[in-house]
Amino acid sequence: MLKVTLEQGRELADVALEQLLPAASEYPISIHRAMRHSVFAGGKRLRPVLCMETARMIAGSLPPGIEELGASLEMLHTYSLIHDDLPALDNDDLRRGRPTCHKVFGEAIAILAGDALQTRAYEVLSELCCPPSARVRIIKEIAHGTGTIEGMIGGQVVDLEAEHRKPDLATVEYIHRSKTAALITASVVTGGLYAGANDDGVCKLRSFGQAIGLAFQIVDDVLDVTQTSEQLGKTAGKDTAAEKATYPALFGVDESLKRADGLLNQALQSLASFGTRAQTLNDLAHFLVERKK
Amino acid sequence: MLKVTLEQGRELADVALEQLLPAASEYPISIHRAMRHSVFAGGKRLRPVLCMETARMIAGSLPPGIEELGASLEMLHTYSLIHDDLPALDNDDLRRGRPTCHKVFGEAIAILAGDALQTRAYEVLSELCCPPSARVRIIKEIAHGTGTIEGMIGGQVVDLEAEHRKPDLATVEYIHRSKTAALITASVVTGGLYAGANDDGVCKLRSFGQAIGLAFQIVDDVLDVTQTSEQLGKTAGKDTAAEKATYPALFGVDESLKRADGLLNQALQSLASFGTRAQTLNDLAHFLVERKK
Repeated sequence: MLKVTLEQGRELADVALEQLLPAASEYPISIHRAMRHSVFAGGKRLRPVLCMETARMIAGSLPPGIEELGASLEMLHTYSLIHDDLPALDNDDLRRGRPTCHKVFGEAIAILAGDALQTRAYEVLSELCCPPSARVRIIKEIAHGTGTIEGMIGGQVVDLEAEHRKPDLATVEYIHRSKTAALITASVVTGGLYAGANDDGVCKLRSFGQAIGLAFQIVDDVLDVTQTSEQLGKTAGKDTAAEKATYPALFGVDESLKRADGLLNQALQSLASFGTRAQTLNDLAHFLVERKK
Repeated sequence: MLKVTLEQGRELADVALEQLLPAASEYPISIHRAMRHSVFAGGKRLRPVLCMETARMIAGSLPPGIEELGASLEMLHTYSLIHDDLPALDNDDLRRGRPTCHKVFGEAIAILAGDALQTRAYEVLSELCCPPSARVRIIKEIAHGTGTIEGMIGGQVVDLEAEHRKPDLATVEYIHRSKTAALITASVVTGGLYAGANDDGVCKLRSFGQAIGLAFQIVDDVLDVTQTSEQLGKTAGKDTAAEKATYPALFGVDESLKRADGLLNQALQSLASFGTRAQTLNDLAHFLVERKK
């Protein structure tokens, strides 16, 4: 059942991305090819799936046009990956099993392709099929979740600056909450806003998103230590090599997985009042924590 | 009179930027210091001024909160400058007479500071003091004007790729229209939208913005050839050294200035129906074309 949810969600997101991104043949060609290279690299589309399944839970069925919101979230996620992989940042050659954007198109075009994915995401968000009052709330939520104050960019900055230093819990938690959990939280919350969730619903969705977002990053860091590059489709062991501030570096693998499990329970609790309607989101939460890549 | 307009507009924009950008003391400090380094580097705030004066012309007086729209436009302009100056792009050490962002904070933080200025711009736009329906139109207009299809990023891409090749008019016009004129046009048009301009008004504002935007870039390229680095506050003669596709490279200085003058007249014509209410915008148009730095 979950497999079908993931597969159908991925397909919906892919079709929307295909329609919403400029064609590879559109002038200027290089930037559009670069954007598509990184967006269509076999991602699982977890953020769109979380967004869409949240909207389905709130509205009772999939609201028309929600996949465009999902596609915007994936564009923002991809922009952050392209910039994160640059030589000046994580200097990674491999992403999802393929050469990274700057390896194929050069650094200049990779920087601009990341910029352009962010820009295009906001253009799409400004035209979503929901009332303007919901659209501006969604834009605010996403901009905050990807910004410098407890958002994605803030997390990347602290992540970079924490390299090669003895990590402390406050720093590791800030990085995880900001770098990854903030956009995952925004994916869940904006799915709810699109579907017309009330304030109480948004509050519960936010708790759910924060818990699974943090658990997701802990598991990501554990996999970096325990899996091979082939299993992951990206360079394994990078965090240890770069002396990154991670949960496993701080607590070891077993304790890290225990904490991820605690967060999973917290996430499930947050949605308890939705009863059986929360089944798919609960299944997704299990999947995010129990995945092997 | 124009001097007062420019001075007051700059001050209004600066106060708004001061309030809207995270404090330099806010965690994580490095990114906020980098954002402020580049934003507060003595810029003329031409885009905010154009935006605010357009809104004043349409509404009859300066609409409350318009300076926040102006500040967002300046954040977007600054993000493009930070990324443009990076070693992988124009590799410039000097901007507005000061060391560029990456020279002071390193490449990683400079890339993220550019990203963050774009993100913060959209967050501010989502909360402007105008109806949500106007806000989403403004966001769409700005995202389009800074995007890859005849927008700012598209212009940067073609600009980079046209280096060291014999320039042709179509390429030079695409670069100028997209790299510079598109955001200037968006500044004028969104000022009008904020103030409640009707479709006919928006159309005239768009013609005005396109003409002065193109003229502005032609004059910029002429100044690069005719002025010294000290006069410009940035490295002069860079275009010639990099064999950039510019108007002066194509037509020479005199013919380029003649074309800029023609565009100035076109711009003034676009606003003819606004009569004396267009006086300040007309003065600004003259200033943009006749400036010496």
